[in-house]
Amino acid sequence: MSGLVLHSYFRSSTSVRLRVALNLKGLAYGYVAHHLRKNEQRSAAYLALNPQGLVPALVLEDGTVLTQSLAVIEYLDEMVPEPPLLPRDPTGRARVRALTYAIACEIHPLNNLRVLSHLKSVLGASEDMTAAWFRHWVVETFGALETMLASDARTGCFCHGDAPGMADICLYAQVLNNRRFDVEMSAFPTISRIFEACSALPEFAEAAPDRQPDAE
Amino acid sequence: MSGLVLHSYFRSSTSVRLRVALNLKGLAYGYVAHHLRKNEQRSAAYLALNPQGLVPALVLEDGTVLTQSLAVIEYLDEMVPEPPLLPRDPTGRARVRALTYAIACEIHPLNNLRVLSHLKSVLGASEDMTAAWFRHWVVETFGALETMLASDARTGCFCHGDAPGMADICLYAQVLNNRRFDVEMSAFPTISRIFEACSALPEFAEAAPDRQPDAE
Repeated sequence: MSGLVLHSYFRSSTSVRLRVALNLKGLAYGYVAHHLRKNEQRSAAYLALNPQGLVPALVLEDGTVLTQSLAVIEYLDEMVPEPPLLPRDPTGRARVRALTYAIACEIHPLNNLRVLSHLKSVLGASEDMTAAWFRHWVVETFGALETMLASDARTGCFCHGDAPGMADICLYAQVLNNRRFDVEMSAFPTISRIFEACSALPEFAEAAPDRQPDAE
Repeated sequence: MSGLVLHSYFRSSTSVRLRVALNLKGLAYGYVAHHLRKNEQRSAAYLALNPQGLVPALVLEDGTVLTQSLAVIEYLDEMVPEPPLLPRDPTGRARVRALTYAIACEIHPLNNLRVLSHLKSVLGASEDMTAAWFRHWVVETFGALETMLASDARTGCFCHGDAPGMADICLYAQVLNNRRFDVEMSAFPTISRIFEACSALPEFAEAAPDRQPDAE
């Protein structure tokens, strides 16, 4: 696959996910930044490309626009099978997807920028209340995730075996994001160990916010 | 597949999703109810089965526990290929997954029972503020979803072509859920049309909350 263009924001954790996946697959891509705090993702031009007005989006060489980070990661895994981001056995695939969605459906949607802004502007939440909200939903799910990882023999150096996959990608992006709200990680040793294993790989490290062209 | 046991709550919209998928695949299942308003999903016995303490979970005949509705639906689609819940072409699959995640990652996580309870108990939101919160996140994403469906020739009687799939399952469960908060649907004619097409099928209708053994 060539001629890929990624619409991204350096700090967006769903953008981090997709950058890691592209790096793991060895795919080069052009980078278009949209500054979320300036609402650039709500411009008419970008809404024509992605009606949800969210990053990331990946534009293929033929102009096809793919949205929603996990849908794009599944697509990349189908089109570029090596290295696999999901195991080969259906039960293992179900496990990795469940770990993935634990983060992608139970933590991230509650804690992204537009939700935190809404809490402040509409519900009158203070900075402290907003930070407590962020930490609450992380801790709620990370407690269960820690158990799911620590109690299962299929967990290896990474969430499932000894190679990184889709669940590790979401875990990495979430733990990076947590740092902005000082989430205490000592109760989550397995998650922390896997995060460190991810961080040691250049495909992950190079996808981090501070390595992007639009980093502040 | 036989000997399946579904852990469910009649009103849970992720449970609705999984019941529809099981019905579409023609799979019979035993039904174990967990009353979310009584916190039965937080019992020690259920937490041993699913550390997240969420419904649904599907237990296979060999005792394997599958969690997270979308992970289970993908598993069912891999194990029982007919009728397919995802298209055969990778770009079509990416589209259906993006439509699915628009609902599953941008609406439902913000609007489930535990989040609405937290808004009231921790942030002091009133019933009216909580209902407005629910409607806000539905309308925000349904506006984009309506555009994504109405502007794409791949939309047919259902979200993608003329047979129901994973995106329709999530759309159906979400629209059912909306009724409890009086979401005005006139701005979403394509979504409404697809909801009606789903409702006309027994596999969907029989998965609705009021048809479950634990319905109140």
